Formats: sequence, structure tokens, C-alpha cells
Amino acid sequence: MVSPDNILEAQARIAPHLRRTPLLESSLLNSWLGHDVVFKVESFQRTGAFKARGALNALLLAKANGKAVDRVVTVSSGNHGQAVAWAARLLQLQVTVFTPADISAVKRQAMEGYGAKVTATETRAEAEAAIDAMKGSGAHLVHPYDDDDVIAGQGTACLEALQDNARPTAIFGPCGGGGLLSGTILAAETQTSRIPVFGAEPTLGNDAVRSYRSKTIVRLTDSPPTIADGARTLAVSARTLQHLLRLQNFYEVTEEEICYWAQWLPTLLKVAVEPTSAVAMGGALEWLKTQHTRQRVLVILSGGNIDRITHQKIWKEDFLRDVPGSKMRHSGASHVE
Amino acid sequence: MVSPDNILEAQARIAPHLRRTPLLESSLLNSWLGHDVVFKVESFQRTGAFKARGALNALLLAKANGKAVDRVVTVSSGNHGQAVAWAARLLQLQVTVFTPADISAVKRQAMEGYGAKVTATETRAEAEAAIDAMKGSGAHLVHPYDDDDVIAGQGTACLEALQDNARPTAIFGPCGGGGLLSGTILAAETQTSRIPVFGAEPTLGNDAVRSYRSKTIVRLTDSPPTIADGARTLAVSARTLQHLLRLQNFYEVTEEEICYWAQWLPTLLKVAVEPTSAVAMGGALEWLKTQHTRQRVLVILSGGNIDRITHQKIWKEDFLRDVPGSKMRHSGASHVE
Repeated sequence: MVSPDNILEAQARIAPHLRRTPLLESSLLNSWLGHDVVFKVESFQRTGAFKARGALNALLLAKANGKAVDRVVTVSSGNHGQAVAWAARLLQLQVTVFTPADISAVKRQAMEGYGAKVTATETRAEAEAAIDAMKGSGAHLVHPYDDDDVIAGQGTACLEALQDNARPTAIFGPCGGGGLLSGTILAAETQTSRIPVFGAEPTLGNDAVRSYRSKTIVRLTDSPPTIADGARTLAVSARTLQHLLRLQNFYEVTEEEICYWAQWLPTLLKVAVEPTSAVAMGGALEWLKTQHTRQRVLVILSGGNIDRITHQKIWKEDFLRDVPGSKMRHSGASHVE
Repeated sequence: MVSPDNILEAQARIAPHLRRTPLLESSLLNSWLGHDVVFKVESFQRTGAFKARGALNALLLAKANGKAVDRVVTVSSGNHGQAVAWAARLLQLQVTVFTPADISAVKRQAMEGYGAKVTATETRAEAEAAIDAMKGSGAHLVHPYDDDDVIAGQGTACLEALQDNARPTAIFGPCGGGGLLSGTILAAETQTSRIPVFGAEPTLGNDAVRSYRSKTIVRLTDSPPTIADGARTLAVSARTLQHLLRLQNFYEVTEEEICYWAQWLPTLLKVAVEPTSAVAMGGALEWLKTQHTRQRVLVILSGGNIDRITHQKIWKEDFLRDVPGSKMRHSGASHVE
């Protein structure tokens, strides 16, 4: 089982090839909230999302362990596919990415730009059968989250933030399959003092929250229609659930809250923030509303890859009329001004 | 008349209060274009735009020269108003910003957040009469561009880029009233080698291009309906025109080209890029199409303040289907692959 030491080892392995992404704060947001929020901006990571960390760690380790990884395969509609394509090119490996048929042109172009063969399949079952066939003939699968090496790589985002003196009293991350949160929990455990880690997931696809509460995997039958495309995963795995059970708490975030922060965060930070990242900020706000002393939270912004349809959905309603401060003031008796 | 030395002096004066904004490049864009484009990202400047530079320089100089500037006044619907409000608060001065009646809530909130009194007027004439009255009673006007100290401040963006080793073979900036371009031309003239500076303006509001060609001020009667709100100025001034006449060339950019780059630049750079900044990239592309040897252009991204209606307009059509490289290949006989 992956340990906090594995996060430190992953960092040493992958850092030479990756960007050390910045920590950003908005003084306006901090003054409005009465708390400090420090953002780890993975939008500036290679391929535009944290996923490059886990994919690269997994492929470097497989190579170092002498596995035959001249051909790599994965399934992804988004950031993980781009990450595996990028990491494979770096290591001069051939890669095939299976994607849904409705993948956006810009995502396909990005994967192909990294030299990947992109194969669209009509159903998930079709993709899984094709991957099984490729694995049978020796291809190496990089799973998006059910993989200790991927988890260790994802944890390096939080580790960097802690090393760069983020000094949080709490840490928030979004949840798809649970890889980022699992790694984040382990990264927090590298520190001498205990820092609670919280998860956040769209209410529309709350399988991980329900799995956390029931301590058993809850599986969705269909891809949930949340705008947070990184959180549409049908289920966590046994591997990630065992980590997720150590979360301090796990918040559900509505589509309106996701769009609210998907408008406000780029407006305040001037950085591209994808809806999945906005989920984490929605969770952080829920927790901050209940806090009576000034807190300093680390929010991991998972990435900045946003297609046109998602931009249109984000900007449909006007949430900029309602400043974040007012959300604190309206939050009821638990909040002290 | 303002000189290259004034840009260096302005930098020494204002730098302690401002951010040294980053230079960013997209390796994907460079490979697609066959040229290098380095972006000076003023989206990360205080107040989200380069305007903080000129406003602060003007107020610091007025104060240093012993002028009574305890009350400051300006007229702006956008970035200049926020910049003056921010600079005035820094210097503990009272400020009134006159704005159009249809100013967006988020811009008004930002100005008020900096402590400005925001007064909406129905017509430009009404605003000008109110400003004259305030000037009569001793208030200090910070003009958005017809002011040597403002011009000197705006030039520090380009100066920083040159000091930070941008090493451009050409420099591109957008044009509203001509303050940024005037300062940019002067900043380029601080260098020992001559670097040509090019301007770019929306075709829909091409008063400055026409003024440049006819060497006399052309004035629009109505605010042009371009999406590039920083370029809706009705006319340049005699002061800025004398600088603009030293531009190497001045490009007109269509609304479609502006939206094209307003989609692609944030997609590639993961940074908020307002349409006025996209105008400069549109101009740069027109020039690059005519170049037969690899060039390295500096594009000044003026800011990242984008309201909801503008986001909706930007993302209406799908320009991400058409990668920038294809625009070079379709550009006709003048381009060498």
C-alpha cells in the first residue's frame, strides 16, 4: 500500500520534468470571506492539469522496474488522456487513448498533438474490451486512479504547496475517482503536525460521498450530468476508498455553486479554472461558514482545461452580481462577523 | 514631450508598488505558427490590467510636484477607472469615477472595493460637465491617455519585458486612446538596437488606424460596438498621435479574429485574456503571415478583466476547431512552410 514516503519519492522522480506550479491568493476574496484561501494552481501544470504528475510517475516507475512499456494504453475523455499522451511522448513510448465518441475537438487535438493514437468508442464496454485485448498483447495500462503510482504522483501537488509554505489549517480537493484526494491525504501525512484534508464532489455525481458515508463502494449506473467533467467517474475503487475514509469530511456541491466559483475564481485570480476545481472551492466555503476563528485553507485547483460548451454553461447565469462575502453573511447563525 | 528616459524614471517610481508581470509562451502555439510569440501578461498586474502603471505614475508625480491632489477624478467604464481608484487608495486620496450608466456590477464593485465614489452619468457630455465642475473646485484629473505621465507609466510594461530578456524582433500592442502604444514605442527606444513596434485596433473602431494613415485625428461619433471594450475610445489625442506615427505599421482586426484569439489564448496560456489583448495577437498574426524567416514577437496582453456578457459573446461560435497553425497554412503564397 502506498505511503507518505512514496509521495516524497514520486516528487524526486517526476519534478525534473514538471512545472512547480504557483500558489496564488486573492486579497479581495480573503477580505470578503474573513478567511485566507491559498490556491495551488495546477492549471499551469504540463497538459493543463495535475494529471501529468500521476501519469509520469507511473510510467517512469514501470520503466525503472524493467516492465515492457513500449506500448501504453489508457481510457479517458479528458485530462488523464492528455497526461498519459504527454508522459508517453516524453519517454518515447507509443500510446493509444480510448475516448468516448463525443470527445471535443480541442481535447482530441491536444492528445494527437502529443503523438497519441486516439480511438473513439461508442460504449465504455467497447473501450474496456479493446483495452483488455491490448493488455493481452503486452500493452501497459495506466489507470486514471486505481494505481498506487498514479496516486503517489497526484499527491505531489499538495506536497509542493506544503513545502512552499502554504501553512494551511485545512486542505480541500475535488473527487473524481479519488486519486488526487488519496495522494493529498498521504502528502498531508508527510508533515509533523496533523492537517485535516476534506473532499468535495458534485451532488449530481455523489457516489464517492455515499461510498465514504456507507464505507462501501457505491456505483453510479450512468455518467452523471455534472458540469464538473473531472468528477463524472462512476465509482471510486477499493484502493482509493481506503484512503478517502481518512478524510475529515466530504462535502457535496451543487451545480449552481460549481458555476458560481467557475465564474468568480478566474475573475479574481485571472487564471483558467475548470469546473472540477470550482467544486473544491465550493466545499471549502461550506466548511469556512462553520468556522468561528480565521482559517487558512489550501484549495487544490486541479486544472484549467475548459472546452467551449463548458464555457457557455459556466457563463449562462450571472453569479458575479453576488460577491463571495455576501455568501458568508447570509450563512446563518453559525457565522461570526 | 515625454521621452524614453521618462519610461525608465517611471519604472523606478512605480515598481515598488506593482507586480513584475510574467512573460509566458506556449510551445504548442510556437510549433503551430513556426514563430515564437512571447506574451507580457498584464492580466496579473494590480487591478487586472496595465492601466495601474500609468495611473500610479501620474498620481505619484503630481504628489511629488506639490500639486494639490487630495481629490482625484476620472472618467472610465473599465480598467482605467479601477486603476485610478486603486492608485488613489494606495496614496490615501479621495477619488470619484464617472462611468456610463450601463457599467457592469462587477466593475462597479471593484472600483467601490478600492474606496472610489462611482457616479453613473447618462451621457458622456454630462460626465464631462461634472468633471469640469470638479476640476474648477480643485480636483485632479487623471486622463486615460492624453497625459505624458500616464503614457510613461504604460511604457513600463514593455520595458520590463525587454529587461526580462524577451528579445523580440517585433512588438505588438492594442490601441484604445493610444497611451499604451505611445509608451511602448518609447520603451523600445530605450534599447540600443531598433525594435519595430506595431499597433492593432478593431476594424469596427478603426479611428486610430485612419488617424495614422491620414496623419490627422479621425473622430468616431459613437462608441464602436466592438467586443474589445478597451478599444472603444472615440479618438486618439494630438499627444498620442505624434507617437503613433512612429509605428512600423498599424493592423485592423475583425471581431471574428478577436474572438478567435480570445478563445485560443486562455486555452493555451491558462490565463484570463480580455478581448482588447486578443486584438494585439490578431495584429501579430497578420504580420507573421508575411514573414519568411522565423520571428520572435512580443505581444502585450493588456489585461484580464472580462464581464459575463463578454464571456458569452467570446464563446458563442466554435473557434477551437480551427487550430492556429491552419491559419498560417491557409495564408497564401507569401508564407513559406
